[in-house]
Amino acid sequence: MKILGIDPGLDRTGWAVLESFPPASPRLLASGLIHTEKGLPLEKRLAGIYDALTAVILENGPDEIAIEEVFFSKRADTQANTTHARGVILLACEKLSRRISSYNPKAIKKTVSGSGLAQKNQVQRMVRMTLNLKELPSPDDIADAMAAAICHIRVAPFRAALAKARAVV
Amino acid sequence: MKILGIDPGLDRTGWAVLESFPPASPRLLASGLIHTEKGLPLEKRLAGIYDALTAVILENGPDEIAIEEVFFSKRADTQANTTHARGVILLACEKLSRRISSYNPKAIKKTVSGSGLAQKNQVQRMVRMTLNLKELPSPDDIADAMAAAICHIRVAPFRAALAKARAVV
Repeated sequence: MKILGIDPGLDRTGWAVLESFPPASPRLLASGLIHTEKGLPLEKRLAGIYDALTAVILENGPDEIAIEEVFFSKRADTQANTTHARGVILLACEKLSRRISSYNPKAIKKTVSGSGLAQKNQVQRMVRMTLNLKELPSPDDIADAMAAAICHIRVAPFRAALAKARAVV
Repeated sequence: MKILGIDPGLDRTGWAVLESFPPASPRLLASGLIHTEKGLPLEKRLAGIYDALTAVILENGPDEIAIEEVFFSKRADTQANTTHARGVILLACEKLSRRISSYNPKAIKKTVSGSGLAQKNQVQRMVRMTLNLKELPSPDDIADAMAAAICHIRVAPFRAALAKARAVV
């Protein structure tokens, strides 16, 4: 099964495609960064993200998609930018009929590194070990996309079992 | 010239199309509400808004679009919902190559009613007078969409003159 992890952002959206064959460790198939120019109008940047992500999905054919929720930021403009971008990212996934799961940043950190308060560097080291990478993943946006996909691979079976249990009750 | 005004929201997005022939008052051509079900996943609601707004633009053929910025809300979830919706609304406008202008809610109130602190009811009365409507426009989302379009009709010529003056300097 192929999982696409996404770390949304208006300036930079990180993405990573992992192949999962449990109980073995997942394997990294591809990753990248969608970048938009700060000088462009918001709507043109959003269209750039939408088109690029559509191409990533069509090219890599993920079965499921894991996307980070927007982290609460003290800077209202940063938070608004990320949320606008996340809107068109969700739309691109939905238009291509992929199953989408959202995870908040703390849950991703906790699932990947054991602590919701882990530093960036700790998460990157755990991502490197899990995926058996030669170097620490970088930049942050791509490392975070890998972490979202790893989190999904670990959590999704439990979420599915829980949904089933609820349906039976 | 036809102007589409939009008041973005995840539950309800209000829209209104005005025809402008200055110095006469603008005329209301059409208006409506895009509603999405609370029980649906976020991505399905966003796709519903995107598709409905695309249909509104294709059907009404506006030359320009005026869209309200997201009002700062004490409820973080409300603000996030509206911003996700605004992302796909901007994308729909951009995909159909319409010129988009954003206005913050205070600027709209001030331009339409004379005060940035005007109550909803005052704005609605001014919208009613300006468009020569038989009754107060309702619900709020549609009235706000009309106000955004009126604001654009009044402000756009000055914005254009300012841009021209800057280009000359």
